Amino acid sequence: MADHIYRVIELAGSSQISHADAIENAIARAAKTTRNLRWFEVTQLRGEIENGEIQHYQVAMKVGFTLED
Amino acid sequence: MADHIYRVIELAGSSQISHADAIENAIARAAKTTRNLRWFEVTQLRGEIENGEIQHYQVAMKVGFTLED
Amino acid sequence: MADHIYRVIELAGSSQISHADAIENAIARAAKTTRNLRWFEVTQLRGEIENGEIQHYQVAMKVGFTLED
Amino acid sequence: MADHIYRVIELAGSSQISHADAIENAIARAAKTTRNLRWFEVTQLRGEIENGEIQHYQVAMKVGFTLED
Amino acid sequence: MADHIYRVIELAGSSQISHADAIENAIARAAKTTRNLRWFEVTQLRGEIENGEIQHYQVAMKVGFTLED
Amino acid sequence: MADHIYRVIELAGSSQISHADAIENAIARAAKTTRNLRWFEVTQLRGEIENGEIQHYQVAMKVGFTLED
Amino acid sequence: MADHIYRVIELAGSSQISHADAIENAIARAAKTTRNLRWFEVTQLRGEIENGEIQHYQVAMKVGFTLED
Amino acid sequence: MADHIYRVIELAGSSQISHADAIENAIARAAKTTRNLRWFEVTQLRGEIENGEIQHYQVAMKVGFTLED
Amino acid sequence: MADHIYRVIELAGSSQISHADAIENAIARAAKTTRNLRWFEVTQLRGEIENGEIQHYQVAMKVGFTLED
Amino acid sequence: MADHIYRVIELAGSSQISHADAIENAIARAAKTTRNLRWFEVTQLRGEIENGEIQHYQVAMKVGFTLED
Amino acid sequence: MADHIYRVIELAGSSQISHADAIENAIARAAKTTRNLRWFEVTQLRGEIENGEIQHYQVAMKVGFTLED
Amino acid sequence: MADHIYRVIELAGSSQISHADAIENAIARAAKTTRNLRWFEVTQLRGEIENGEIQHYQVAMKVGFTLED
Repeated sequence: MADHIYRVIELAGSSQISHADAIENAIARAAKTTRNLRWFEVTQLRGEIENGEIQHYQVAMKVGFTLED
Repeated sequence: MADHIYRVIELAGSSQISHADAIENAIARAAKTTRNLRWFEVTQLRGEIENGEIQHYQVAMKVGFTLED
Repeated sequence: MADHIYRVIELAGSSQISHADAIENAIARAAKTTRNLRWFEVTQLRGEIENGEIQHYQVAMKVGFTLED
Repeated sequence: MADHIYRVIELAGSSQISHADAIENAIARAAKTTRNLRWFEVTQLRGEIENGEIQHYQVAMKVGFTLED
Repeated sequence: MADHIYRVIELAGSSQISHADAIENAIARAAKTTRNLRWFEVTQLRGEIENGEIQHYQVAMKVGFTLED
Repeated sequence: MADHIYRVIELAGSSQISHADAIENAIARAAKTTRNLRWFEVTQLRGEIENGEIQHYQVAMKVGFTLED
Repeated sequence: MADHIYRVIELAGSSQISHADAIENAIARAAKTTRNLRWFEVTQLRGEIENGEIQHYQVAMKVGFTLED
Repeated sequence: MADHIYRVIELAGSSQISHADAIENAIARAAKTTRNLRWFEVTQLRGEIENGEIQHYQVAMKVGFTLED
Repeated sequence: MADHIYRVIELAGSSQISHADAIENAIARAAKTTRNLRWFEVTQLRGEIENGEIQHYQVAMKVGFTLED
Repeated sequence: MADHIYRVIELAGSSQISHADAIENAIARAAKTTRNLRWFEVTQLRGEIENGEIQHYQVAMKVGFTLED
Repeated sequence: MADHIYRVIELAGSSQISHADAIENAIARAAKTTRNLRWFEVTQLRGEIENGEIQHYQVAMKVGFTLED
Repeated sequence: MADHIYRVIELAGSSQISHADAIENAIARAAKTTRNLRWFEVTQLRGEIENGEIQHYQVAMKVGFTLED
């Protein structure tokens, strides 16, 4: 974490393919509006089921980014 | 949580009436500046006491809203 | 917490001197862009080590501020 | 808990009125199919929001009942 | 929490009406023997069930009070 | 846990003798109605006191059993 | 979670391929005997090792389903 | 927990024989100065080792007692 | 913890200087009315902010003391 | 914990007799290869079941020992 | 866990490909210096981000191995 | 955490001066026997009290170091 001040935000992403894909989606979406993303931590792996099959893989994450001076 | 990306924020609200009212107040306040609120989760129920009586009911919450593309 | 609605954000700060200094740095940085800071809570004390010595003291915190009407 | 063996199940109930009502609903529903309910413990208070207003109050609970010999 | 030293005690109260009422009862009882109560935090919401209906609403709380010099 | 699918249930047992005995009792009772019990994990050790002496030793447990195909 | 009452059960599944596959297996197995599965939450990712290689990927989950009236 | 208000205190007891004995000791000691003890919950099992053998079994507990009107 | 029975209480102290000073203050205050203090454990580091600067450093602690026979 | 530096390791022991015996076994085994064991803390009580009876009592522990200068 | 004494160690591994790959890497590395690895449990899923893309997938794990007599 | 495999160990250090000093002592001691220390995380702040004054400041930490290939 070195010499910077970080801000940590909480996101939840989803995917119809996998939890790994849901993580990618959420990071990609966050990167569109927030510069200087540095790390993430997964806090929850969930999903929605319909007719006995997983329809959406869902993931909650904390994401840290450096604040510019 | 379907196909959207969610952002989760943390709020604390209060009321002189009840915890239920404190929840309503915090959601109403958040809705004034944040669109697309979808869910909340209560993380703490507290309160302040004066002269042996509860003066303020306080509640901490996580609130999720969808990010628009 | 009285009659206000609070928003809680999560920050991580660092210092080459001490954890106490890292706390000061993070609050000072947050105060530059956020008015009405009211309280903080330390959630993690960490650090980076190089050649057997602590190089950076790091601290994660939740910080609450009142939302103006 | 005296001399009995308890089984503990986990339920989630909801209400359009309040969390207190969601608790009542879930206990009432459980009582229809499970005899000898003895106690409950609330593990989560949540809700769904639409157009800035709470649409459903949701509550997760553990519920204990005695097993008959 | 300003300049005082606080002592924190743990209480459990009950009510035949509601959890909100159980909180009031426990604070009122604590105020009879302890001066300078300042805040409380709910740590558990429970209840007892008989014949499929809630008989007692129970609440566990931490309560803080200032120590006089 | 090998190649099987497990179901995990939560039980609470009691004994007038000891916590160790309460564990035995709960497993024995569960085995009467559930086949293929495989493991347990103690989640809580409690007890009831009367006239300054422990009357019941109580234990909460998770118990896992394999689902047959 | 809308207007339904949910029951939450705890499962553990395994796979020789991956944690993702272990999740699929457990949901598929649960769907054979339980209708109206709605969501799951992963609570533990584990595995067994033999001769320095992972033999079984194991996953513990909570799974919620709606109770029919 | 019925209709009473409970106070919960935290104790730590020890024994040179066993954890079970340490629990008995702590309850017996508490009963000497506190009337109306009702329940206890074990929160920690520890011990001290000397020369490779356990010298003291230690246990931390919460103990609840009813407040008289 | 050897052969004694301990009682554990929870305190919160504050200081305008530092968290370290808040710890000292709380122990000193507890020692005025409670004999035989033996250990403490910090459970929370907090603070109050005014005009962008920390006004009070606050600390919550558990403190153990031996009960005399 | 006085003036020493401690190292903490995590062990899991088992016994066909009891959890108490599993604790003894693990400490005895650790003492064979590690000098200066000082304390332990139990972090999990588990067991394996076969044909409806407990076959192995298992216990996970943290064990601390002083590092010599 | 049967009749053996286990030692549990904590590892963190990484991969440029996926969390699943980071798990494999850490187990493979541990197997080079530690015999008799038996199980692992994932305790954290993290990652590092650069230029809006995940650069390293990181995983923290507990790994258990049997101690030989 | 980049491309390395980390091993995480748990230490407890002490000081007669301060918690900050106890952290320094534990890192310095670990560096004498373990190369490539990279980070630490404080998991507990404790202390021992005699005659109403703090005699030893104690700190528990996790410390990570890279494994060399």
